[in-house]
Amino acid sequence: MIMTSLPTPHHQQTLRSVEWSGDWQGKLKLLDQTQLPAKIEMVDCVSVAVIREAIVQLRVRGAPAIGIAAAYGVVVAFQESIADAKVFDEASKLLLNTKIEDLRSSRPTAVNLSWALTRMSQSIADVSLPADAALVGKTLLDAAIEVHEEDKRMCHAIGRFGADRIADGSGVLTHCNTGGLATSEYGTALSAMLTAQDQGKHFHVFVDETRPLLQGARLTAWELMQRKIPCTLICDSMAAQVMREGRVQAVIVGADRITACGDAANKIGTYGLAILAKHHKIPFYVAAPSSTFDVSLISGSEIPIEQRKEAEITEAFGKRTAPEGVVVYNPAFDVTPAELITAIITEKGIIEPVNESNVRAMLQK
Amino acid sequence: MIMTSLPTPHHQQTLRSVEWSGDWQGKLKLLDQTQLPAKIEMVDCVSVAVIREAIVQLRVRGAPAIGIAAAYGVVVAFQESIADAKVFDEASKLLLNTKIEDLRSSRPTAVNLSWALTRMSQSIADVSLPADAALVGKTLLDAAIEVHEEDKRMCHAIGRFGADRIADGSGVLTHCNTGGLATSEYGTALSAMLTAQDQGKHFHVFVDETRPLLQGARLTAWELMQRKIPCTLICDSMAAQVMREGRVQAVIVGADRITACGDAANKIGTYGLAILAKHHKIPFYVAAPSSTFDVSLISGSEIPIEQRKEAEITEAFGKRTAPEGVVVYNPAFDVTPAELITAIITEKGIIEPVNESNVRAMLQK
Repeated sequence: MIMTSLPTPHHQQTLRSVEWSGDWQGKLKLLDQTQLPAKIEMVDCVSVAVIREAIVQLRVRGAPAIGIAAAYGVVVAFQESIADAKVFDEASKLLLNTKIEDLRSSRPTAVNLSWALTRMSQSIADVSLPADAALVGKTLLDAAIEVHEEDKRMCHAIGRFGADRIADGSGVLTHCNTGGLATSEYGTALSAMLTAQDQGKHFHVFVDETRPLLQGARLTAWELMQRKIPCTLICDSMAAQVMREGRVQAVIVGADRITACGDAANKIGTYGLAILAKHHKIPFYVAAPSSTFDVSLISGSEIPIEQRKEAEITEAFGKRTAPEGVVVYNPAFDVTPAELITAIITEKGIIEPVNESNVRAMLQK
Repeated sequence: MIMTSLPTPHHQQTLRSVEWSGDWQGKLKLLDQTQLPAKIEMVDCVSVAVIREAIVQLRVRGAPAIGIAAAYGVVVAFQESIADAKVFDEASKLLLNTKIEDLRSSRPTAVNLSWALTRMSQSIADVSLPADAALVGKTLLDAAIEVHEEDKRMCHAIGRFGADRIADGSGVLTHCNTGGLATSEYGTALSAMLTAQDQGKHFHVFVDETRPLLQGARLTAWELMQRKIPCTLICDSMAAQVMREGRVQAVIVGADRITACGDAANKIGTYGLAILAKHHKIPFYVAAPSSTFDVSLISGSEIPIEQRKEAEITEAFGKRTAPEGVVVYNPAFDVTPAELITAIITEKGIIEPVNESNVRAMLQK
């Protein structure tokens, strides 16, 4: 077992979204998040095809967790590429690269996926071929573990910076899931809350259920309840009312890709929340690691937005709830422009105000 | 059969949400809207208890339709109150009044319910007791029919005023259901769209699914499709994105109670939509009959907001989708302040700008 849980006084149950066991010839398991909270089931990732399906179907989700799964996925791709051969040659490298590109195309919006795959490729870029397969395999697994370990450190660093923005006795609103399930542990936006709890602060979290796939209801409420952080589940359409009632002093969300100027793609509904927060004069924070930034893009309009299938909306949870043949629009993400974001909380520090020079300066730290 | 359908070139299917058959000893049937669009089932309203349950469970819903159902409900209450007696006396009037109050308490926010019940009581206020039961029964049924017929005229008048605000080639966004199912026919906000179609205009409607009970997905999309009006179903959290994409030129919604200053209670999510519309400089219209106004209240904060059960959010359509024991907040309505409303479209004309003197002046027309 490579991962160990960080026991905390509040930890009721430790579930790892991504788990590698054994050496480079070992196995990847992913927690099937589509079954939560009803069932705890692990997906045995016996092939790249299974990993790709798990990413597409959101069995593993959350930008950082997708990155970690993809990093270990490259080790599985390597196992497949060499089959039982003892050497890693040009032919197997070509095969490996095809499988890496196959993983890269599984979801278009979150940049951490591509970032992790590029890191993995770079880790063996200097290897002269043919090479000893065991040596290359070990190098790849070490690189994947480093992606994973970095993510853990990132979660805690974001948590420390983010916790400063949660006042004792306040209310926090969040959208989608940005916790331990979306990362290695603690999460991004949720890490700010877990860390604030570790610091002894008391606060209340309003959890948007996050249609269509209800990551807020199924995952975030569940994670908060595990930690005994007081929380209230609401429909996405109730956020404005909760703000109007004066119950929210900060909105904290995650991100899937952030441009050089600070425009942030995140789960659909985030952009609307940012407008509601502005209207109610509530600070709006985005918490994300530096691996979520894509400085090759300036404006958020350049971020590709994944369109997902209609059934997510029309057949909510097995039951048809819309007329047959209805036209559906189902963008998985929206982009919140920098001017609506009070600050971006990264593992390197807080970007505030959010603008291109502050983004670039922080990333160079 | 008292009701007749108004055939139009576009009418594919006529479903009446409220239907009375026979004389005052006749029967009330309600379309069970919780089963739509999967099943078309009528509720046989054999008792006041059944009618009350239908209102509480939203089998009949939409402020005007609840008012009509309650008006006929008083005829059923009268049948029960006199049993097989030929005279209507003090004892049966006392019983009738108890049943009327029972209906009145079924839902707290929509004022049309109370308005219709008061109209019904007033229709027999001058009857000297004891009185001939058949005569009182006929008087009550006539009053209920008048409530119903007035609603039809109201729908079409609102439609004519509202259609002026829908430009040819534009996009309209709506929330919840305000169509024929929510009224006698054509609806309130939806009537503006149906009337615009009758006028030959082409436009596209974005339909918020409207969590938790999905009246938009189940009812509005269905009504629009019956009429072959192009529409796209979205999750409530996608409205901001659709606005940002420039696809919405007007938001039109209904209301359940409007105060003297023009603050409007409507399905939860409406207030947030109004803020989003303001941010995107899109006009925001409320369409409602004068029976929806409660000028005994000045500010929207005085409107009682119905809280509904947790299972509507945690057990979406039969499947548990949130952790056991999670705390839920489920207000059925929110209040949009007058300053966020571009205009209120009534059957008497358009209130614009929305303020107390304009509201009172329009209601006195």
